[in-house]
Amino acid sequence: MKVGVIGGGQLARMMVPPAIALGLEIRVLAEAEHSSAAIAATAVGDYRDLDTVLAFAEDVDVITFDHEHVPEPVLRALIERGVPVHPGPDALRYAQDKLLMRARLTELGLPAPAWAAVHDTAELADFLAANGGRGVLKTPRGGYDGKGVRVISSAAEAEDWFAALAEDGRGGALLVEELVEFRRELAALVARRPSGASVAWPTVETIQRGGVCAEVLAPAPDLSDEADAEARRIAARVADGLGVTGVLAVELFEHVDGRILVNELAMRPHNSGHWSIDGAVTSQFEQHLRAVLDLPLGDSSPIAPWSVMANVLGGPAGEAFTDRYAEAMAAHPDVKLHGYDKTSRPGRKVGHVTAIGASLDDVRSRARAAADLFG
Amino acid sequence: MKVGVIGGGQLARMMVPPAIALGLEIRVLAEAEHSSAAIAATAVGDYRDLDTVLAFAEDVDVITFDHEHVPEPVLRALIERGVPVHPGPDALRYAQDKLLMRARLTELGLPAPAWAAVHDTAELADFLAANGGRGVLKTPRGGYDGKGVRVISSAAEAEDWFAALAEDGRGGALLVEELVEFRRELAALVARRPSGASVAWPTVETIQRGGVCAEVLAPAPDLSDEADAEARRIAARVADGLGVTGVLAVELFEHVDGRILVNELAMRPHNSGHWSIDGAVTSQFEQHLRAVLDLPLGDSSPIAPWSVMANVLGGPAGEAFTDRYAEAMAAHPDVKLHGYDKTSRPGRKVGHVTAIGASLDDVRSRARAAADLFG
Repeated sequence: MKVGVIGGGQLARMMVPPAIALGLEIRVLAEAEHSSAAIAATAVGDYRDLDTVLAFAEDVDVITFDHEHVPEPVLRALIERGVPVHPGPDALRYAQDKLLMRARLTELGLPAPAWAAVHDTAELADFLAANGGRGVLKTPRGGYDGKGVRVISSAAEAEDWFAALAEDGRGGALLVEELVEFRRELAALVARRPSGASVAWPTVETIQRGGVCAEVLAPAPDLSDEADAEARRIAARVADGLGVTGVLAVELFEHVDGRILVNELAMRPHNSGHWSIDGAVTSQFEQHLRAVLDLPLGDSSPIAPWSVMANVLGGPAGEAFTDRYAEAMAAHPDVKLHGYDKTSRPGRKVGHVTAIGASLDDVRSRARAAADLFG
Repeated sequence: MKVGVIGGGQLARMMVPPAIALGLEIRVLAEAEHSSAAIAATAVGDYRDLDTVLAFAEDVDVITFDHEHVPEPVLRALIERGVPVHPGPDALRYAQDKLLMRARLTELGLPAPAWAAVHDTAELADFLAANGGRGVLKTPRGGYDGKGVRVISSAAEAEDWFAALAEDGRGGALLVEELVEFRRELAALVARRPSGASVAWPTVETIQRGGVCAEVLAPAPDLSDEADAEARRIAARVADGLGVTGVLAVELFEHVDGRILVNELAMRPHNSGHWSIDGAVTSQFEQHLRAVLDLPLGDSSPIAPWSVMANVLGGPAGEAFTDRYAEAMAAHPDVKLHGYDKTSRPGRKVGHVTAIGASLDDVRSRARAAADLFG
């Protein structure tokens, strides 16, 4: 069986090991030579170009993704030609447009921060006035890792974005959301087959620094069984309600009042699930392959009481992740190292490390110390 | 860092996932197109041809192997040109010639079955008379998985092999060994760096059917701490004494009198260590890569009390391992499946499965049942 992956980043890269284990063939349409997924890349081209994507899809059993940016017309053309696409365009449009996503989650009755589509500073000022004077402004399309997101305390701070919107001429709106007072951020990861069955991993805690995920604690410490079940239920309802196939990550806020609110969605394997490679019976990457092929899903149980994943962000330009290997391996023989074979730039995710074990404090300090060796 | 692997079988294939995780580049010199390691194969050619191997080695940091059959002159030529080769020719000659191996282990004082180099039926008859009338006859070179091995109870049964030896004209001998009365077979796996440090995994029990490994129980059940330590010590002494670098597997007999005797050696990752992919902090394939690059070795601890690996032998020709996936995954969501992408032939190893858990009986029956689904 052949799985075609559009996008050559580290998520495509990390699908390759479970594909090898399962005896599946994986093919990647990468944006450029020397991508992170180059070991499997069999084509290089523009994923927005219909002919490029159709040619790539000719010899695979299913198309899936490293990212959510393939244009809807390209996705629909694939389906018209009989190529299974997972997740499909009916789901991906919610990942591509945060206003659509917010409207759909509200329709489904899922818990979320207060939000509004705002077309100008007057509408934005009204929202801020009704929500404590502050808010999180987001461009509906194209943001990630903190880009396209701005915390504001006056409508004037949004003037440049509204000006860009007006220039765009498509009559769009910005998304503004309540600035949630949260205890912490959580994430619920679920995989869903086209035939409907889904399996969730334990709810995790994600720790951001500078808008980028720094650490993931699996499972989330001190989370009640009810809250864990609620987070998993939300993820399963989002997957069902939006028709997501493959892995879905639901980023959540744990509000200071105890409510769990949906923050963002990702319809693909996600940084909050990297711990599962070394910490769960079935990793998110294996599960994604099973799901998009509509094969029975694997057991998502953890293999140890605690897993902690810490991202490695790029240090001085030009230094490779592997340059620090001897030191990291000598100091941490029990920490799993994952390099993405990406050129290092300050702040860029170039790898991650995972530790597992019986004591959270111990596991977390080992993961942190190993990641710090690369910093 | 680039690791060049000579040989495109499943052992090379299974080095690729940890290479991807570690951000290493792996290159394979395969015997043919569509090898089991085709995802990483960058060259196809004859490993006995010096020019082919030198060209392959030009752009890698180290050469290692999927098998032990590369001729010594080719290995020496690589080293002369400054290419690190692990394991090197001084070690590999013991893997390539069982008579040399027996002689060296005897020199090192390691426990072994009684053995002799026999040049004709008369010498063989003398050995049999002195060892209970039976023995195991082996061709010193080229045997594997029961091939080149024959249990005999009279010297006459060896006439064809002696005739072949005479035709060969090189004045060689056959190896005959005492037919050991053993309780069971064990294996000790160790990885050793060129700089000398070594790490062993827990001693395992291997269960053969028809001369081929069927199951591996890790750790070996009901093995005393002393016997486990003795097996590991033997493996470490073999690795040191023969100068093995990378992974070394030492197949052992547990004699009915309790002694542990060396049966066979393999200087590469080995079937008896496949359990470590899913059952140990550091798998034999990751450890082999670390060792041949002279990087610090990883923790070899098991991640669960018990791991059981069961081989999947080929069924009807033409059926792919993946044809039974839906059934196997539905019945065994917690068993890890490993396909080698090899054409199925009756009796050929085409994949393996591993289960881990707290109860040996449960783990073993799950692994057995999953493997049987492919039979």
